[in-house]
This record gives sequence, C-alpha cells and structure tokens, in this order.
Amino acid sequence: MNFRTDLAIERQEYHEKEKLDGVLSSCKSEDGVKITTIEIINSQGEKLIGKPIGRYITLETEKLYKSSQVFTAVCYALSRELRDLLPSEGTVLVAGLGNEDITPDALGPKSVGKLFATRHIGSELAESLGLGELRSVAGIVPGVLGKTGIETVEIISGVVEKISPCCVIVIDALASRETARLGNTVQLCDTGVSPGSGVGNRRKGINAETLGVPVIAVGVPTVVDALTMATDVFEKAGVALPDIDLSAHRQMMVTPKEIDSLIDNASHLIAMGINTALQRGLTAREIAEIVS
Amino acid sequence: MNFRTDLAIERQEYHEKEKLDGVLSSCKSEDGVKITTIEIINSQGEKLIGKPIGRYITLETEKLYKSSQVFTAVCYALSRELRDLLPSEGTVLVAGLGNEDITPDALGPKSVGKLFATRHIGSELAESLGLGELRSVAGIVPGVLGKTGIETVEIISGVVEKISPCCVIVIDALASRETARLGNTVQLCDTGVSPGSGVGNRRKGINAETLGVPVIAVGVPTVVDALTMATDVFEKAGVALPDIDLSAHRQMMVTPKEIDSLIDNASHLIAMGINTALQRGLTAREIAEIVS
Amino acid sequence: MNFRTDLAIERQEYHEKEKLDGVLSSCKSEDGVKITTIEIINSQGEKLIGKPIGRYITLETEKLYKSSQVFTAVCYALSRELRDLLPSEGTVLVAGLGNEDITPDALGPKSVGKLFATRHIGSELAESLGLGELRSVAGIVPGVLGKTGIETVEIISGVVEKISPCCVIVIDALASRETARLGNTVQLCDTGVSPGSGVGNRRKGINAETLGVPVIAVGVPTVVDALTMATDVFEKAGVALPDIDLSAHRQMMVTPKEIDSLIDNASHLIAMGINTALQRGLTAREIAEIVS
Amino acid sequence: MNFRTDLAIERQEYHEKEKLDGVLSSCKSEDGVKITTIEIINSQGEKLIGKPIGRYITLETEKLYKSSQVFTAVCYALSRELRDLLPSEGTVLVAGLGNEDITPDALGPKSVGKLFATRHIGSELAESLGLGELRSVAGIVPGVLGKTGIETVEIISGVVEKISPCCVIVIDALASRETARLGNTVQLCDTGVSPGSGVGNRRKGINAETLGVPVIAVGVPTVVDALTMATDVFEKAGVALPDIDLSAHRQMMVTPKEIDSLIDNASHLIAMGINTALQRGLTAREIAEIVS
Repeated sequence: MNFRTDLAIERQEYHEKEKLDGVLSSCKSEDGVKITTIEIINSQGEKLIGKPIGRYITLETEKLYKSSQVFTAVCYALSRELRDLLPSEGTVLVAGLGNEDITPDALGPKSVGKLFATRHIGSELAESLGLGELRSVAGIVPGVLGKTGIETVEIISGVVEKISPCCVIVIDALASRETARLGNTVQLCDTGVSPGSGVGNRRKGINAETLGVPVIAVGVPTVVDALTMATDVFEKAGVALPDIDLSAHRQMMVTPKEIDSLIDNASHLIAMGINTALQRGLTAREIAEIVS
Repeated sequence: MNFRTDLAIERQEYHEKEKLDGVLSSCKSEDGVKITTIEIINSQGEKLIGKPIGRYITLETEKLYKSSQVFTAVCYALSRELRDLLPSEGTVLVAGLGNEDITPDALGPKSVGKLFATRHIGSELAESLGLGELRSVAGIVPGVLGKTGIETVEIISGVVEKISPCCVIVIDALASRETARLGNTVQLCDTGVSPGSGVGNRRKGINAETLGVPVIAVGVPTVVDALTMATDVFEKAGVALPDIDLSAHRQMMVTPKEIDSLIDNASHLIAMGINTALQRGLTAREIAEIVS
Repeated sequence: MNFRTDLAIERQEYHEKEKLDGVLSSCKSEDGVKITTIEIINSQGEKLIGKPIGRYITLETEKLYKSSQVFTAVCYALSRELRDLLPSEGTVLVAGLGNEDITPDALGPKSVGKLFATRHIGSELAESLGLGELRSVAGIVPGVLGKTGIETVEIISGVVEKISPCCVIVIDALASRETARLGNTVQLCDTGVSPGSGVGNRRKGINAETLGVPVIAVGVPTVVDALTMATDVFEKAGVALPDIDLSAHRQMMVTPKEIDSLIDNASHLIAMGINTALQRGLTAREIAEIVS
Repeated sequence: MNFRTDLAIERQEYHEKEKLDGVLSSCKSEDGVKITTIEIINSQGEKLIGKPIGRYITLETEKLYKSSQVFTAVCYALSRELRDLLPSEGTVLVAGLGNEDITPDALGPKSVGKLFATRHIGSELAESLGLGELRSVAGIVPGVLGKTGIETVEIISGVVEKISPCCVIVIDALASRETARLGNTVQLCDTGVSPGSGVGNRRKGINAETLGVPVIAVGVPTVVDALTMATDVFEKAGVALPDIDLSAHRQMMVTPKEIDSLIDNASHLIAMGINTALQRGLTAREIAEIVS
C-alpha cells in the first residue's frame, strides 16, 4: 500500500473486493450527497485501513460551488453528522491546523476565521442581541511548528487544560490519493489527527489520548502527494514501478490550479457546518450573517 | 489624572515638578537614544504612577525609519535592555497580542511573524546550518477575545504550562497620551500587561502572578485614546473642560495616517531587538536574513 | 468652515437654518433608511457646499450589522439609487481606491474583492452556469501613489481607454465631521472623487472631466480628521478656539476601535449594492453565493 | 516535445546533442552562479525552442536562502544582467503578474510589494532624504482575469499609454519541467510573456508588440505542470506512455511543500535585483532598508 492518503475510504477502496476483518461499513445517499461510514473495530481493522479504531464518515459530492444546491445539501449533512459525534453540552474548542501562508494548507485557519465564537458572550448579551441561547464555542489557530517552535498538540492541550471543553474539533487540510477527490470530499472522524497526516505532516497525534477529551477531526482533501501521483500513474497503466529515483517527489504536493476557490468554498462549508451543528436555535443563514 | 496612557513616563511627566515618593528614576542618552528608567518601589509609587511595582524602561528617539542610523541605535539599545531583564538560560516564549485585522493593533502579531523561533531546531541541525548554539525561542499569536472566545491570558498560560519557558515576552500596541510619541517610543517593563491596557483593552492581567513565570512587556504606542486627546486640547488651552458629552470618543482611537509604515518599522524593530538579545552568536543582519 | 468632511450633507447641515442658493435638497424615509438628495445646481451652491455641481445622495441608518434587517434595507436602497445613476447598458468599471494595509482606508479594495466581475464571462458560459444574461462588469484595485509611484487617476484613465466602459464607479473611504456617522452613512454622487478627499488625500480628481465618462462615487465615512475633531470640541463647548498649535493633528485620523468589523460590513454592503444594481436577473443572495 | 515549460533552457536541453539552427548559446559561471544565455535568432530557432526571437538568460544556483552568500551572488548577477537589458534612462514600469491568493502564483505581486517605487518622489525630496538622484520607477499589480474581468495586457497597456515608460518589466511565476529547478533558477528575457505561459495561463501576450515599448520578463519557476510530471516519469523510466487518461492532471500543478519560503525568498531576490539595477547610487542594503 505504497500511497499516501488521509482518507479511510481510499484505504478501504484499495482492498476493494476483499472482505475486511475488523472493518464495518455502510453507505447511504441523501440529496445527492453520498455518505459512507466506516467503522474500524479492532486491531485487524487498524492494520488493514492504517488508521486507529474509530468511526470515519465520508461525504462525497460533485464539485462544491457556494451557489449550488449541492453546497446546502453537503452543509446540512455535515452539520447532522457532526451533531451525532458531539457531546450535547459543554464548550466546544475548534482548532484550525495548518499554515495560513500556503493556500492548500490554509483550510483550518480560514475555517476558524469564519467560526462563530461565543464562549465570551454572556447569556444576557446574547438575549439582548436576539440570539437566544448560545452553545459555548471557542476557536484557536495554533500555527505551525516551523514558525512557532511549538508542536500543535502542545498549544491545543495547553488551552484544553485552561478552558476544559467537552470536546475538540480539529480542522485540517488532507491529502487524498486521487486528484478527483480534491474539494469534493469531506471526512469526519472521532479519532482526531494522526502523526504524519495533513499537508504539513504533523509530528504528534492530536487525539483523545493526547488531549484528554474526545477529538473530532474534519477535513477536506486539498493536495495529492506527488510521489503517490507518480507511482499511481504506473499502477493505473499496469506497468511495474521502474527503478528510478522518485525521492524528490516526496517534497512536492499536487494541487488544483484553482486552489484559492477550493479553499474558500471548503472553509465556508466547514465553518457553516460546525456553526449550524452547534447553534441549533439559529439558521445557517442567520449565522452566516453574524460571522461573515 | 483623567487621561489614558500605557506609558509610565507619561504618568511621571504629569506630576512634573513634584517629588514622587516610591518612584525612582534615572536617565541617560546613548547614540541619540534617550533611555529613562523608572522604578516603582512601593504602593505609594503605584498610586502615583498608576502601575504595579516594577521597572519601566522607555527608549525615546526621533521618528523611526528603517534606513536610518537611528533605527540601528534603538535596536541595539532595546536588545541590551532586554538582555538585562531576561534570564540567561531556558526557553523564551514570545506572545504577540492584538488584532491582526486592525492596523494599529497588529504590532504584536506582526512582530512575532518576524521572530526567529528556534525551540524545535535541534542543536545538530543548527550546527549543520552554521548557526552555532541557539537560544530556545517559541512564539505564539493568541488572537483576540472577540474572535476566539478565549481570554489571551488563558491561551498563554496554557502554553506556558506545556513548554515551561523561563520567561514570557508579551508584545502589545500601546496607547500614549501624546500623538508626538506614536512610533517614536519603546517601553519595556518587567510587570507584564495590565488589565484595560493596550489598544484592545484586555480584560485580565498577563503577568508573573497569572503566568507563574517572569513576564516582560515590550510595546510601542500606536494610538491615542480619542477622549484623552479631546480633553487634552482643553487642558493645553488652559480652558476648563466644558460640560459636554464626550462619551462617544471612548470608542474611538487616534492614529497616524501612515500607520502601516509605523507598524512595519516598529514590528521590525521589536523582532530584531528580541532576536539579537536572544541569539548572541549571530549579528542582527544574519538574523534578519534568516527570518525575513 | 474650518472642518474637513467628504459628506455633502455635513456641509449642508453646517449652514443649518440659512437658505442655500444653488442647493436643492429633498428627503425621504424608506424601511428605516433616511435618504437625502442634495443637488448643487450652480457655482453659488458649489461655494456653499464646497463640492462641484451635481447630485449627492446620502443614506443614513442605524449601525450596520450584517445580520440585521437594516442591512437588507440599506443594501436595497443603495442598489436602487445606483440604478438611477447608472447608464442602462455597457460595461461598468468599478475601482476600489485606498490602501489595503490601513484598515480604515481598505474599504475600496475590500469592496472590489467581493465584486462579481463578469466582463470576461461569455454569454454562452453564463447561460450554461444558469446565470442568465449578465451585465458586463470589470474591477480594479489601483493601489496608492506612495506604493505605485502612479496617480490613481492615471491608472484608472489608462484602463478606461482600453476597455471603454459606459461609466466608472469609484469606491473610497470617506472622512466625516461627526464620529457618530462612521459606518452608518453611505454617500453616492455623480461627480466622482475630488482632489484632497478620502482618507489618503488623493491629489487629483477622478471624475468625468479626467476620465471622459460619467463617474459615480460611493463611499462610507470611516475616519474623522483629528484636527476637525479637536476644533469641534471647542465649538460644541461654545469656547473660542484657543491659540495653541494643533498642526500635529493634521497627520492623525480618528477611527473606531472596531474598525475591522465596520470595514467588513461596509464593504459587503457596497459590493452587494453594486452587484444587485447591475445584475438584475439575480437576487442579492444568489450573487453573494457566487462571489463570496 | 509533450511537456510544458516556460524555461528556454529546458527546451534547449531537450534537444541535447543536436546542433540547433537559429539558436546561439553561451555559458559562464560567476561566484557559484551559472549564467546561460540563449539567443534565438530566426524562425528556425523559434520552432526548435518554442519561443519568440530574442534573448533568454538563465541564472542557476543552489537552493536560495536569504542568509547565504549564494543569495547575494545571484542578486548581484540578476541586477547586472538586468542593467544590460534596460534602457539607461526613463521611467521603468514594473508589473507583478499573478494571483496573490495562490501561493505559487503570488511571485509577481509579492515582488512588486518590495519594489522601491520612486516616480512620485521629486528630486528635491529625494535629496533632502539623502537619497541622491533616483531613477524613476513605477509599479502595478494588475490582478487576474477571473477576478477583474480585464486581461492583464489591457491594464498594463492602459497604464503604459498614460505614463510612457521607457520599458516594462513583468514579473511572473513560471512553470518548469523539472521539480529540481523550483526556486533555484531565474529566467530573464527581452521578449516579454507569451500567451499560455505562467502559472495562471495568461491568454494574451505581454510584449513589445502589444505594449509598444520593450518588455523584459523576469521569473522563477514555482510549479511543474502535473501532466508534464506524470508523462516525464514514464520517459525517465524508459517506458512508453501508456494509453490512460491523464487529462485531469491538466488542471493540477505540482509545487514544493515549503512554497511559502520559496516565494518569500524569490520575491525578495527579484525585487532587490530590480531595485539595485535601477538605483545605482544606493547599495542593495540601503534599498532593502528603505523599502522593507
């Protein structure tokens, strides 16, 4: 399995026709959104999929444009799936991982920028603004190790200990195997972020074990690893991988030419999905108007 | 004393000719930089200056332009004064306070963006890059309460508990009483940041008491409170403050039309001052080349 | 009339009870938006108001929040007034004046960033996207003299000669006399931008004479000149302006502490107002979804 | 020749051992910088290289880090080669092409942001600032067609007609065939920018024919076309290109994971190269201090 992907569904597809021990999966379709739930239930499943025990939900759709009905349908599906994973009470801390200065890695920071942070708004103020009862939400953009000198997990866990959220949502740009998935797929999972995943290859896991509270990860693939793309063209061609040096490709990523729109749309989708999952008394439109 | 300032020196000037119990001060001039050290030594001094017991160092100069010799002189003075305040060993955490989206409040985030973060660079890598021995430095941009839902002090103290720095440097845009000081004055102190100070009026103190380690604050005045300016014109004119409603001015700040250059120059100065104070084996120019 | 303002309505208010020769004005209120139209019809009116012959429309409202009904009402009023001023056919060129790096001066560039530029979209493509018939719109951000070395009017007139628009809309941050107006007032006029107006004090006019096509200016006050504010407090107090030097205030501007939200809301308002004025086949919401 | 590159040197290398009619080339090395000059002298050469008659200068080096001596050497070589191509008198207009919101395409806008624009500085002011005699320089960032609705060449030619420069320098991010060249190669040429080149695939040429004045193009490769990379791995492996659909790769670009540093360094290099080529009375360091 010599390709890189952060998507459980691509790992599962790899084993296409095999029966996968320790892996349960189901699939449904709603309003044009295909929702696949993969559950890894034991260490056998962990090995096969290459991801920890837990639940991985993939939303697949056509290309996202904000103006389309598709957008509304995916946003609705995302908020509903999030609600199922989230505790019903307590502060939710949302962390936007990644490097703001690299367009395909900016998904996390851009999403948090559109988040409706409410933890500091007293219930009286909320009522006076006609906002009703608000779920407590906090947001941070921890930055990247190369610029801060601090591991992302250190910053998040420090904040977790201070504000005691009921859970953490981490948003991260993902790598997929297929370019066709870029911008069209959303993955949610209840296992957090694994070392070495994401665009920037985080070194340490960000999960319930390291943070002490449940960690939900939400991501959209924005890049394909260049080495994966190079080896895949051979596989698709049915040609044995030649004995040439492809190591330089390890430092490269493949990304769409319109990556600015992709990030814009995907960050809007994720922020609105989270906002509507958490603020049940407000419509997506009301929230969009408050935060935008 | 119905004016707002974050500068100890302006509080002292207010009492101009009085003998100030509990306040020691001295002044020297080097390479065209006037350096005033004010020490508040007891509660009597605290009341007179309106700031906690501690040491306040003010560097005053002509207008900062990066190309001038003045810049080099102030940068050198800043790094030397910082060294006197800093522990000689251990990780230094630098926090850039303020709102990046408001030009005069962006001093902290912009300065941290030019910081040479080294905590993650192993000594072997440093040597192989010809960097010699590096002082361990980390940097964070905590954001502002209105966007994160988290008090700045909560984020910083969470990170402090994770990475155990020997001290914290907080960088913040300051309010001065006099427009003439904007961009021409640097204040360092060993008492951190007080509630209600800075452009954005932080609600809680960021200091040794709240963080558990020494806190050095570095700032440059970038705004004058509009209410202060309005009342000051009367005082300067020798006219009694009339009985008109000036409350709207409370929500306003006065800032130079060329605030973008001011922030650019001041953030460069602060970052270079900190970098050279901490990386004694490298010249300011070498550091500027590494980080810029 | 020793105060600075870019608003015709503040000049008119100054002469409050006088009969103004050469100035016609009317006022109406719709959905909570007060709409005042001032027409300067001769050189006598020009002198009294300090602005060229033409039509100045002011929309006044409560504080703008995107979530409020007020926002929708002002946006609707703006688009309707714009339609009255715009030729019914031909390409419209929208220029966003000002310095992106200074928050209160970034109104123009931010508005153009939310504009729905269509001039390059062929009618076939538009139909295939379900967009129907589109009005041709182009947008530019000319930058500021200090950074480009080129007068704004030179850049715009150069582009005008190339693309031959039927008219130009210039968006610029304005100075008002009263802080109470910041963010709550929109001014449209058919005389373009005068020398010395705006936050950045443009040196040359941008109008029908210099561009050769009709020029509509749209702006929102985002600053008060500090000298104006200082002298005004004396006037309001009924105290004679004292003989003190206020010249330093000339280089200062007064702006709200929450200027980032103000610019965000005002640029959204102006962009949506222009978009809906020009794309009559699309609702404001459809356009917002396409461009955001 | 089914690969995409904007580099004349890669076209030449493709024909490696052949004698190329209509193509002259020479090579020298200075301070570790390899400088190759390719001259296309007739239509035969145009066909072989796939570029118009003219001069193409390539600077090759190790990876650029600002702190290295390499940086200084390349900067010096660039400024000297530019001087040879530039008229000795008259205003120089520098245009930064590309999309600021896509990191690898932001080279042009970022470079112009570091340019020393002087056209608006009177000779008296320059002298009073101790700047001596300044060459007149102007800079623009025309934006991209998808956001402005205007072809880049229309904006530039409009400005050219207004300010009558002696020549135009266009800065653009380039595509190379080899990932090894990304960030390590600078190409200058006197033929401007061809249709379909650059990251964003400009539709119309920007050259002496369309602008009416000499056009010098300066660029650094920041991406490899994904289709080129995919087909190249087969060629390198000595395997015939299989009959699989690679069309999706056309919409993809391959770029380094550290593209933010690459753009930062390359834009600094280009801006400093241009600044020192034009302001002969100032050292690179003096200019860096003025503009940064």
